[in-house]
Amino acid sequence: MPKVRVFAFAGSLRKGSLHKKLIEASKGLAPEGMEINAYDLKDIPPYNMDLEDAMPSAVADFKKRIAESDGVLMAVPEHNFSFSGVMKNAIDWASRPYGESAFDGKPVILQSVSPGRMGGSRAQYHLRQVLGALSMIQMQFPEVFIGPAGDVFDESGALTDERASEQIRKQLAAFKEFIAGRGD
Amino acid sequence: MPKVRVFAFAGSLRKGSLHKKLIEASKGLAPEGMEINAYDLKDIPPYNMDLEDAMPSAVADFKKRIAESDGVLMAVPEHNFSFSGVMKNAIDWASRPYGESAFDGKPVILQSVSPGRMGGSRAQYHLRQVLGALSMIQMQFPEVFIGPAGDVFDESGALTDERASEQIRKQLAAFKEFIAGRGD
Amino acid sequence: MPKVRVFAFAGSLRKGSLHKKLIEASKGLAPEGMEINAYDLKDIPPYNMDLEDAMPSAVADFKKRIAESDGVLMAVPEHNFSFSGVMKNAIDWASRPYGESAFDGKPVILQSVSPGRMGGSRAQYHLRQVLGALSMIQMQFPEVFIGPAGDVFDESGALTDERASEQIRKQLAAFKEFIAGRGD
Amino acid sequence: MPKVRVFAFAGSLRKGSLHKKLIEASKGLAPEGMEINAYDLKDIPPYNMDLEDAMPSAVADFKKRIAESDGVLMAVPEHNFSFSGVMKNAIDWASRPYGESAFDGKPVILQSVSPGRMGGSRAQYHLRQVLGALSMIQMQFPEVFIGPAGDVFDESGALTDERASEQIRKQLAAFKEFIAGRGD
Repeated sequence: MPKVRVFAFAGSLRKGSLHKKLIEASKGLAPEGMEINAYDLKDIPPYNMDLEDAMPSAVADFKKRIAESDGVLMAVPEHNFSFSGVMKNAIDWASRPYGESAFDGKPVILQSVSPGRMGGSRAQYHLRQVLGALSMIQMQFPEVFIGPAGDVFDESGALTDERASEQIRKQLAAFKEFIAGRGD
Repeated sequence: MPKVRVFAFAGSLRKGSLHKKLIEASKGLAPEGMEINAYDLKDIPPYNMDLEDAMPSAVADFKKRIAESDGVLMAVPEHNFSFSGVMKNAIDWASRPYGESAFDGKPVILQSVSPGRMGGSRAQYHLRQVLGALSMIQMQFPEVFIGPAGDVFDESGALTDERASEQIRKQLAAFKEFIAGRGD
Repeated sequence: MPKVRVFAFAGSLRKGSLHKKLIEASKGLAPEGMEINAYDLKDIPPYNMDLEDAMPSAVADFKKRIAESDGVLMAVPEHNFSFSGVMKNAIDWASRPYGESAFDGKPVILQSVSPGRMGGSRAQYHLRQVLGALSMIQMQFPEVFIGPAGDVFDESGALTDERASEQIRKQLAAFKEFIAGRGD
Repeated sequence: MPKVRVFAFAGSLRKGSLHKKLIEASKGLAPEGMEINAYDLKDIPPYNMDLEDAMPSAVADFKKRIAESDGVLMAVPEHNFSFSGVMKNAIDWASRPYGESAFDGKPVILQSVSPGRMGGSRAQYHLRQVLGALSMIQMQFPEVFIGPAGDVFDESGALTDERASEQIRKQLAAFKEFIAGRGD
């Protein structure tokens, strides 16, 4: 039986990104039969419609990987009470050109981690409006908001908090069912 | 008496951007005593916190110009039911490093143009949440949503629609008063 | 073959409500095999958790009808840049008591009409966040934003605008498919 | 020197409402020179435009008290990922009839308390869009999100948590300055 392939990206470019760490942690917390492939947005340039005729190769690659996946995991940083510009920029690219979006009909889940108690909320709910526009199939619950970040990762960047791990484990297990329920 | 200096940028990089044209049109519609300086985001790289110690020169310049202005005009494209990633990316940069945002306390107005009747709405209301986070001083009314774009610009890119021009003229005149009301 | 039963309510109490008229129009525009049952919120009191032990009979009836339906049509007025309080109040009731929501897993569509060009947008996108919380299954497209109202209804309250009628006809036909696709 | 009069209401009708308790606590935490007058929404009927010609007396009273105040404190419950219908219904009433809103230009602050860690966030950010529509003057920071509720109130309903009390104390002191800064 083939594995469920989840394509994952974090809306942050810095090396020590907490959202990249969330995705790394998710790899180890995924249920049997699910593989999570992480993608780094570092080569995605700022979106420019004038470049659409010859899509930048990083964008073409990004779109191809989304298209080949069974579902998408977005790790969403909150900057200034919304999703990061870097996250939205990558999404804008992959939704283009008009009529050739990579996201159409793809199941999707969200994860956020923040320094405080509430972070990620404002980012995820804005992003859900975007996902609606993209006709993605959103799994709503369980939601994953991890924090405060200082308490859940150890110095090596591993997610050591059991409550946070359990939240992610439940989300990924539910996502496997959710994806299966969309098929046939 | 010194002019009111409004710093303006469009959240789009393409050459023929309708939002750049909106700003060009605004220059000619500004009240006496207001000058509008347009800025092109083309050199702003994707935000990366690792680069904050040595801010990219384009970002430093962008921040300096915002700081020197009396108010900010953002021309906001709507992509996928929210503001463009390019717009948010530039805002994320200029809000950093922590405690050194260029936006704090700056008066701000928004303009959008869209191919349809409703476009821009979803972008501007999301953006207002971001502007709240940045402690910008938002002028709410009159709002400027121009469309359908096909009817308002001529082939040379000039705004020829009188109703649209009047909306912008009113907004800019009100903004001059709004900025003056914040002082002394 | 049994008919698809759509339960419909408008978030407005006034007799001449445009949103009630939208629902009336929808009855005539529904595809074969779909029946639309309109409900008036006039007997739903303001939500008060202290009354949950003995649910007001209007609320119990409202919940029962939602539960018996195959899908829900909400006609959403925009007041003050969001959905009406009357609409949200009825939704709050039907989501209660905790664990006994009438909405869980129900397919849902939205319609709005407004005096201007943009109205309804701000109401519907806020409402979609609520529908997510309720685990309703949202059909996103085609969206129905009708306006300006003055141009589309005749004096008897009938929807006479062909373009508006066609939008609704398409939405209801798609909703029939959408509901069918959720079953078995 | 006259006191700053803050008009306060909670978007909940139940007797033991946490949001009513927040307002009670705020009375004791207000700075010298500020008085907080609490209002109970229990007599406000569901909004019906047909009743606008003869405003219900509770609504007329509600509007009069808002108009006489120097600022407004809204204690905002979150129901189903947004503000309560009861809260929005009262706001819809007080914004009417067209051109006679009680809220225009009034300074405003928000407080929320919730059983969990994140509650109130989704309610307050939706409400801020409404406040923008109403041309209220929003103080953004400090924000007040209190929770988890189980840890901060004692059995008599008094706010006993020092961190929560300090948040409110800071907000109210800042609001006094904010209101003063709007004058003369």
